[in-house]
Amino acid sequence: MDYQNIFNEAIASLKDEKRYRVFANLERIAGRHPHALWRKENQNLREIVIWCSNDYLGMGQHPKVIEAMTETVQRMGAGAGGTRNISGTNYPLVQLEEELADLHGKEGALVFSSGFVSNEASISTIAKLLPDCLILSDQLNHASMIAGVRGAGTSKKVWRHNDLEHLEDLLKAAGNDRAKLIVFESVYSMDGDIAPIERICDLADKYNAMTYIDEVHAVGMYGPRGAGIAERDGVMDRIDIIEGTLAKAFGVMGGYITASQTIIDAVRSYAPGFIFTTAIPPGLAAAATASIKHLKESGVEREGQQRQAQRTKDVLKAAGLPVMPSDTHIIPVLVADPDLCKQATDLLLDKHGIYIQPINYPTVPRGTERLRITPGPVHNDALIDHLRDALVDVWQTLELPFTDAPAEEELDAAQGQAVYQFAGG
Amino acid sequence: MDYQNIFNEAIASLKDEKRYRVFANLERIAGRHPHALWRKENQNLREIVIWCSNDYLGMGQHPKVIEAMTETVQRMGAGAGGTRNISGTNYPLVQLEEELADLHGKEGALVFSSGFVSNEASISTIAKLLPDCLILSDQLNHASMIAGVRGAGTSKKVWRHNDLEHLEDLLKAAGNDRAKLIVFESVYSMDGDIAPIERICDLADKYNAMTYIDEVHAVGMYGPRGAGIAERDGVMDRIDIIEGTLAKAFGVMGGYITASQTIIDAVRSYAPGFIFTTAIPPGLAAAATASIKHLKESGVEREGQQRQAQRTKDVLKAAGLPVMPSDTHIIPVLVADPDLCKQATDLLLDKHGIYIQPINYPTVPRGTERLRITPGPVHNDALIDHLRDALVDVWQTLELPFTDAPAEEELDAAQGQAVYQFAGG
Ligand SMILES: Cc1ncc(COP(=O)(O)O)c(C=O)c1O
Ligand SMILES: Cc1ncc(COP(=O)(O)O)c(C=O)c1O
Repeated sequence: MDYQNIFNEAIASLKDEKRYRVFANLERIAGRHPHALWRKENQNLREIVIWCSNDYLGMGQHPKVIEAMTETVQRMGAGAGGTRNISGTNYPLVQLEEELADLHGKEGALVFSSGFVSNEASISTIAKLLPDCLILSDQLNHASMIAGVRGAGTSKKVWRHNDLEHLEDLLKAAGNDRAKLIVFESVYSMDGDIAPIERICDLADKYNAMTYIDEVHAVGMYGPRGAGIAERDGVMDRIDIIEGTLAKAFGVMGGYITASQTIIDAVRSYAPGFIFTTAIPPGLAAAATASIKHLKESGVEREGQQRQAQRTKDVLKAAGLPVMPSDTHIIPVLVADPDLCKQATDLLLDKHGIYIQPINYPTVPRGTERLRITPGPVHNDALIDHLRDALVDVWQTLELPFTDAPAEEELDAAQGQAVYQFAGG
Repeated sequence: MDYQNIFNEAIASLKDEKRYRVFANLERIAGRHPHALWRKENQNLREIVIWCSNDYLGMGQHPKVIEAMTETVQRMGAGAGGTRNISGTNYPLVQLEEELADLHGKEGALVFSSGFVSNEASISTIAKLLPDCLILSDQLNHASMIAGVRGAGTSKKVWRHNDLEHLEDLLKAAGNDRAKLIVFESVYSMDGDIAPIERICDLADKYNAMTYIDEVHAVGMYGPRGAGIAERDGVMDRIDIIEGTLAKAFGVMGGYITASQTIIDAVRSYAPGFIFTTAIPPGLAAAATASIKHLKESGVEREGQQRQAQRTKDVLKAAGLPVMPSDTHIIPVLVADPDLCKQATDLLLDKHGIYIQPINYPTVPRGTERLRITPGPVHNDALIDHLRDALVDVWQTLELPFTDAPAEEELDAAQGQAVYQFAGG
């Protein structure tokens, strides 16, 4: 048993498939988002523009958020000092949970180390508590939801992405009396499409199923108070458990669920991933609360994001770049080859100072490799024009095809190829 | 299927068993550790002394740590803004990983959202990559390690706590050619005992097994540079993977592993719990680095902790309180009943302003319910005397038996009753 060799081979196989990942080493500059500094190996720092951040609205650099964090750290210290049960529950964290419950119009909320942990811990715990539970999971669910489904150890059925007929068939087959949990996302982060939430809730009512939604790529950004797509669609009260993150549009770190007091109390009391880990620091909690409160009141960030995202789509399409269809602020541009996808992003960074991460298998199905562009309110028109010129240059250099965006049907076919196992990282 | 009712019953059963948990709502005061404010429901704030913190050395409030965190937040913002791969890798985080690799004398390090996630993600990924791997897991391993073992989905054997003969039997039975991963802790956090690391490494060599150690309750506190028990014992280089947390003695949040570059790269490339989640914020990373750097150089915190922990043990024993045997800074005091354990801690808090969390099943086996006291360098002699007086009063009020600490054999018998499934939360 040559251990070293086994790990070496595991890495070599990623390199062969051109999906070995190298992380860009960045220094963000508070107040200058989306500008940042990039450190290439041991070379000097260079200023670049980030076009793939999930700090979608730049809230991680909002003066109120920075002020809440630094003030709280100075007053209470850096860490929580214990698990929630053993001295780690801090007042800013309790306030954050109240804020989140209010945001989603639910009785209670529970904060976890991350959105990943909130999905894994909550889905597995809820499904385990229900006798003989069947989990119905959308085909394109995120890796963290899949981890929760696996962790539950109950039976599961995967329904074709956003396909209501398929979901109904599976619900019907399970019958009204069996415990059923439907888990899905509102915004799917690699394609930017949106789930038909209301009609999923109709089916849940009809067949007496529970509903669990991941609004990670929607909270802060949709709905009049930034509670997500379910708020925008007026159906928050019809979902049993709404999950979100504090790390994307809210700009900090941590994850959460909101639900009835009973469900919150059950997850709080039974989920190992919640119980046996240090609570998030008071500084992070205070920063997240400041961010949520701000976005509850202020619509300018959301409007700016929608405006600049639409403009980016229009400008790139007009230049003949293959923009994939998307209903949201997320703009995928098709490359359809892992090696070219990596080359394109290397060129963008080295030559044009534009940082966009290549999105390859297993994050998306093979053959749909893409750039994923996330404009925010601070990507101004000049930056958008610069992005277009850079992309056109890269497309010409690499002889990538200029086309209109591929027709919906082609993409649907590509998606049919594989169940995305691991969207989003 | 009445969903609400099922969750209600799950909670009711915890209440029946007297193990429903209520979290104390605390406000720590930077610079005044272990003093803090406690908010009882809607009542006024009251000053109390924390005796159960896992911010063992008070580093979460160290001026260098607070300064590093606030300065970095002001300069770079609150959050990382993305997963490690998608714009989230930040320079302070890269520096932190270098610092950790250096601390443990390893080629590389990898930081996760928490110690829980580092164990779950690393153990499961390493074991999955090894063909037909057998995991050998100490009986008292923490919930996060158990989550990793389960997540691996490979076969596992549980060896009796710290029992080298049993471990050897299992290794021998598996044979030299089979892939084997021995997972264990250095300091077991509920009893305060220590693993025979060197002899475990001898067995690993003899039978060609890999070794994975959790030093969560030792890093910062043992060894000349605070790298843990393996450093103290001079055997760091004999362990393949050393895992630790940034959230206890280092006072911040996050978890990590250190190992050879190949193992780090394999976990980095394959672990969903690492890949598909937002990176930790630059402010947390900078704070952790400051804390580690300080404790590498400074021994006063470690010496102070050992001195005051020893003094606490001596003073409580002299007062006839049932202090359980412990080789470390962790001092368990036996109550042996869940209800009395809760009553004792309520009395301590309400009457004496002393906060110690009751430790009941499933964190420890039934019949071994206890107070778990963690003195640090700033618990001065006057505070220790105050603790003794309060405990004596509580013992008298509740008519708990004054005795010498129970003999080792009695405790061993009690531990034999149950495999701790969930130590540490
Ligand atoms: C759909 C979805 N859910 C959950 C997560 C995890 O959230 P977090 O980054 O807070 O762990 C992500 C991405 O990271 C995601 O894309
Ligand atoms: C032995 C052990 N390992 C891991 C952890 C998890 O560390 P963290 O709090 O950083 O998640 C804990 C406690 O929380 C622990 O006691």
